[in-house]
Amino acid sequence: MRWARIDHAGTPSYAIVEGETLIPVRGSPFATWERTATTLKLAETKLLVPVVPPTFYACGMNYAEHVRAVAAKIGQPPNLPTRPEIGYRANNALIAQGETIVIPADATDKVQYEGELVAVIGKTCKHLTRDNALEAVLGYTIGNDVSERTWQRSDRTMYRSKNTDTFKPMGPWIETAVDLDALRTRVRLNGKQIIEFHTNEMVFGVVDFLVEMTRYITLHPGDVVWMGTEGECADMKHGDLCEVEITGIGTLSNPVARATA
Amino acid sequence: MRWARIDHAGTPSYAIVEGETLIPVRGSPFATWERTATTLKLAETKLLVPVVPPTFYACGMNYAEHVRAVAAKIGQPPNLPTRPEIGYRANNALIAQGETIVIPADATDKVQYEGELVAVIGKTCKHLTRDNALEAVLGYTIGNDVSERTWQRSDRTMYRSKNTDTFKPMGPWIETAVDLDALRTRVRLNGKQIIEFHTNEMVFGVVDFLVEMTRYITLHPGDVVWMGTEGECADMKHGDLCEVEITGIGTLSNPVARATA
Repeated sequence: MRWARIDHAGTPSYAIVEGETLIPVRGSPFATWERTATTLKLAETKLLVPVVPPTFYACGMNYAEHVRAVAAKIGQPPNLPTRPEIGYRANNALIAQGETIVIPADATDKVQYEGELVAVIGKTCKHLTRDNALEAVLGYTIGNDVSERTWQRSDRTMYRSKNTDTFKPMGPWIETAVDLDALRTRVRLNGKQIIEFHTNEMVFGVVDFLVEMTRYITLHPGDVVWMGTEGECADMKHGDLCEVEITGIGTLSNPVARATA
Repeated sequence: MRWARIDHAGTPSYAIVEGETLIPVRGSPFATWERTATTLKLAETKLLVPVVPPTFYACGMNYAEHVRAVAAKIGQPPNLPTRPEIGYRANNALIAQGETIVIPADATDKVQYEGELVAVIGKTCKHLTRDNALEAVLGYTIGNDVSERTWQRSDRTMYRSKNTDTFKPMGPWIETAVDLDALRTRVRLNGKQIIEFHTNEMVFGVVDFLVEMTRYITLHPGDVVWMGTEGECADMKHGDLCEVEITGIGTLSNPVARATA
């Protein structure tokens, strides 16, 4: 089942995606819901960020080739994480399918995509086990962890390198029927595929993170966990279109513009 | 004016604090509101966290003596920040006035308070200037940035050292009439004052942070910015009561317990 969050006559509403049709519901997939009698055309409906998370979690350094590529760039030996330690991103930076990634006027040219699988938490949970961790996941969406590499290196925190407004595209929707091992992530820039990787070949997987996090942390409905990216990333510039496809989920597409002041 | 958020017959509601009386309102201080005809006794009402922030911002290393104390402990030269770079904390960890800070069973004895001023954002804003930055602040509350120092040193991220459930007491309410330069912060453990400092003698002040953050970030109503702490911090243990007072705002009190498993 596919859950979109839409602008329905000025009000955010959840809707079931069936092919090219949307069926708005009363309620939400995080609680109870029922179909309305309305149908809308997907192509004519404004999609919103599929959820505004109570807490926005993100892994860094969770794919081996990406860790090696980053290490090579800064001239240091690769340092693979030995434990699933989660980090954070910020809601101000979220944008939806089709919205524009705006590069600030004072950013360098090193603004890069990172195509990521996003686990969307469906219920309140703590002390998850390896056996029940995936039951806490409502479904999966796609994230683009846009990063300004110069600031990422120079700053003490990631407030502007990764959390500048518009730097966190997420969508287009939440897919609940996902076979993690079958997924492949593909990133295209202006229609040209730059990278393709097995989405689930992570240093630590979704279960590893959820079990470790919930030793200390209560997860809540709508929390999101961005799972990191693989390989080297390329620069994006004004006028580009960046697409992150994860097979079985969909494609997150965002144009790129540079602010003039 | 003092704004509390209360459990009003099972529903969260904002209320004006007048002495020992609470007057619930319809609406919220972040939008429009009007007084109801109800009055409640402050002492008999359950206070909630005064706001659940869309994004939870926090400064680290924002008082000179604290930076020096931390540096001395780890045997490194003090490294005062040269720019106001903001970090993040997580909503899962928030607890209200009077609720218990629970130390996980596997934590070390190095679990410490950090008494902090918290700026509560009142409106949507970007590109604030030094002249108008404080107009974006609805008021101020108090935070206790509880920290497990062993994990803070050993882990790559602060997911458990600072964001374990219950590690972020915030309250008791939001005070809108604040003279920043007059404030003094006092931390008491079991009634004994451990430290007192001039709240506003920060490395970078509220205006510095808001101006720098909003070069890149849109702030939203209810966002909170925790401003850091001064001096050395002491360990808290099972059975302790930790109080953070900021003159002119109030006192945030939380008991401490250690989980047994």
